[in-house]
Order: sequence, then C-alpha cells, then structure tokens
Amino acid sequence: MDTVASTPSGPPAPRLRADAARNRAQILAAARAAFRESGTAVPLDEIARRAGVNIATLYRRFPDRDALITQVVVDGFSLVLDTARVAAQTAQTDPLAAVQSFLQGMIDNRELLSLPLIGGPMTNDPHARDLQQHIAAALEEILAAGRSAEVLRPDITAVDLIATAALICRPLPHLPPEQAATLATRHLCVFLDGLRPEHTRALPSSPTHEEITAHLFTEETT
Amino acid sequence: MDTVASTPSGPPAPRLRADAARNRAQILAAARAAFRESGTAVPLDEIARRAGVNIATLYRRFPDRDALITQVVVDGFSLVLDTARVAAQTAQTDPLAAVQSFLQGMIDNRELLSLPLIGGPMTNDPHARDLQQHIAAALEEILAAGRSAEVLRPDITAVDLIATAALICRPLPHLPPEQAATLATRHLCVFLDGLRPEHTRALPSSPTHEEITAHLFTEETT
Repeated sequence: MDTVASTPSGPPAPRLRADAARNRAQILAAARAAFRESGTAVPLDEIARRAGVNIATLYRRFPDRDALITQVVVDGFSLVLDTARVAAQTAQTDPLAAVQSFLQGMIDNRELLSLPLIGGPMTNDPHARDLQQHIAAALEEILAAGRSAEVLRPDITAVDLIATAALICRPLPHLPPEQAATLATRHLCVFLDGLRPEHTRALPSSPTHEEITAHLFTEETT
Repeated sequence: MDTVASTPSGPPAPRLRADAARNRAQILAAARAAFRESGTAVPLDEIARRAGVNIATLYRRFPDRDALITQVVVDGFSLVLDTARVAAQTAQTDPLAAVQSFLQGMIDNRELLSLPLIGGPMTNDPHARDLQQHIAAALEEILAAGRSAEVLRPDITAVDLIATAALICRPLPHLPPEQAATLATRHLCVFLDGLRPEHTRALPSSPTHEEITAHLFTEETT
C-alpha cells in the first residue's frame, strides 16, 4: 500500500524515500519498454501495471503523459552525456579510444535509451535541449583532441558520431541480444579503423548539428 | 471497377493483365508501408484502403495474411539479391567499389525493403530462405575478390556486410529523408575506409551466417 506513505499535512520530505524512488525508477523503466513496443500512445494504466504500481502512484510522480515522456527522454540524454563525458576524460591521451568508449557505451546501454533518433518519443523540454547541446560539445572536445594529435580524420564531426551512435545502438530485430551486440561491435571496429587519417577519401558534406536538432524536438505550441 | 476484369468461364490469361499487375504492386507497396508503421497485425481492409483497391481484389491476389507477408519479404530479399549481384559484377575490377555499391544500394532502396533484420515481418517460405543463401554467396564472392586482390581486410565476412546493411538502411527517425540518407552515406564512407587492409586491428569473432539466419525465420508449425 504505497498510499500509506502520504502525509499531506506534514512538511515535504527532504528527498524521495527509498520506496518512492524505487517506484519512480520502475515506472520509468516500464514507460521506456512500453514506448518502444507500442509507441507513446500506450495507456498509462498499462505502464502502471508493467511497473507493478497502482495508477494513483503513477499520477503522483507524473501528472500527465507529457511529464512521463519528457523524463524518459531526459534520462536518455543524461546517460548519453555521462557516457560522452567519461569518454572525453581520456581524449587527451587516446582520442580514438575515447571515440570507441563513447560508441561502445551506446551499444552497451541500448536497452536504457529511448531517444528521438532511435525511434523514441520527442519532447520540447528545455533541459533535454540543453543536454543535447552538451553532448555535442563533449563529442566535439574528443574530436578536437584527435585532430590536433592527427590520429583522427579531420572531416569527422560530432553529428557523425551522434548519427553513428543512433545507427549502431538500435538492436537488430529477431537476433539474440548478444549476437546483435557482437555484430554491432564488429561494425564499430571497422568504422573506428576508418576514422584514422591515413588513406581516407573525402566524406560527402554533412548537415550541421543545428539542422539535425531542428527536427528532433516538437514545436512550441504556445 | 476491377471486378469487370473477371471472366470466370474463360481460360486463364497467360499473364496478369496490366491493371491486375498494377493492383498487385499497389497492394504490396501498401502492405510494406502498413507493416512498417503498425506491424503485421494491421487489418487487411486497411491495406486494401491504402492501396486504393477493394478487399475482394486483395483476397483474389493474396488469399490470406501469410501470403501477403511472404510476398513482401520475398520481394525485399529479391531486391537485396539483385543489388548484391549487380555489385558482384564489378568485384573483379574494384572489390571495394563493389562493397560500396551494395551498401549504398541498400541505403537508396530502404523504402522498398521490409525484412526481418530491419524490423520487417518473418516468414518460413523456402524461396525466401533460398534468396538469403544466394545473397550471402554473392557477398562472399565480392569479399573473396577483395581478399585475393589484398584491397579488403581479410577478417570481414558476408555476415558483417548483411549486419552493416541492416544497421545503415533503417532511416533515422524524425529527420528529413535526405538528411538521414546523407548521414548514413557519410557513416558508410568511414566504414569503407575501415575495410582497407592497412592498419586494421583484429575484429571480435563473429556469429556465422547459419547462426544468424536461424533466428530470422519462423519455426515450422507442422
């Protein structure tokens, strides 16, 4: 009975109690899985059922569908940003290893991601937009280190790494997850070898990060 | 009124008349689009409506959902095989260009493909299985030419090319198709540079084609 936890007349707790935090994580995991399988129109009581909480608990954490969608997307971008920043820490010593660390992290965490470029929901949340800008900046930092050490081809961009992450982190359907991950990792190894500056042919020109992101957020409705 | 074409008492026509062939192509195109958007459980009268034919016409061409699903998958594998065989014709003169031709063809024809590894339906049709074997053989022919000319890394397999085709031919959601195609093509260029034999690091070991295809067909129910 999670309603026992409510003390409407008392002061707000300094932080979510452990079971409330657990409920919240369960709801978000259930929403990610449900959005992936059935799209964002999936009924909220179906999400509550999958999460093992009652619908009142879901509404207490997320007042409406948009709040739930936004949190799922923000969590996804936060995980991508964490992965990019961890990778960027090694960029000065081994930029190619940093690129590999970021992209392999995307393959390894694919089950936790629900983002527009991999078929997840869209949002217009400013925090999500900020996170996306920070991701591009962290990747650009890695690439700049690689260019200046002349171990990465100069024509690769943060947009390329974002597109590559999106292409390789969607699981190949029907295959067992470990086979799909192995094939994605082999593909990634060849791609990484293609990032070296020797013997590379010019890439076709790329859309900019701004041009890409313009399509990944819903329009303001105000 | 497509029923005007029926002459039940006459002999069967030597081939589908032009409008019947057109109806058939419209039904298959509508089925591909509907399967992609809503899965294979989409009602057949919804497919007939999208195709602009009446449901009786659909049932005359495809007696049940399985027949329609099978033809969509067979058409997809046939297009992949055609692309692989055209590419294989240039394998003796330029194996790397042949690989590029195959993979770029997959990107260019993505709208016409509905196959298990890109989220399309599964089938257990023997013709579809045969086509898949022929695709692997055509790709292996290209790779063998590249290995023997020492212009391709020796550890790349037909399975890698199939997985790569599946990874790069799924459109990046929400982006305009031309942006998504450009990003996929840039990614492909880097991958192709990584196929050269110089300076390559060993790939992790791969599942075999048999191991992969075991997951891509439905089980016999007999």
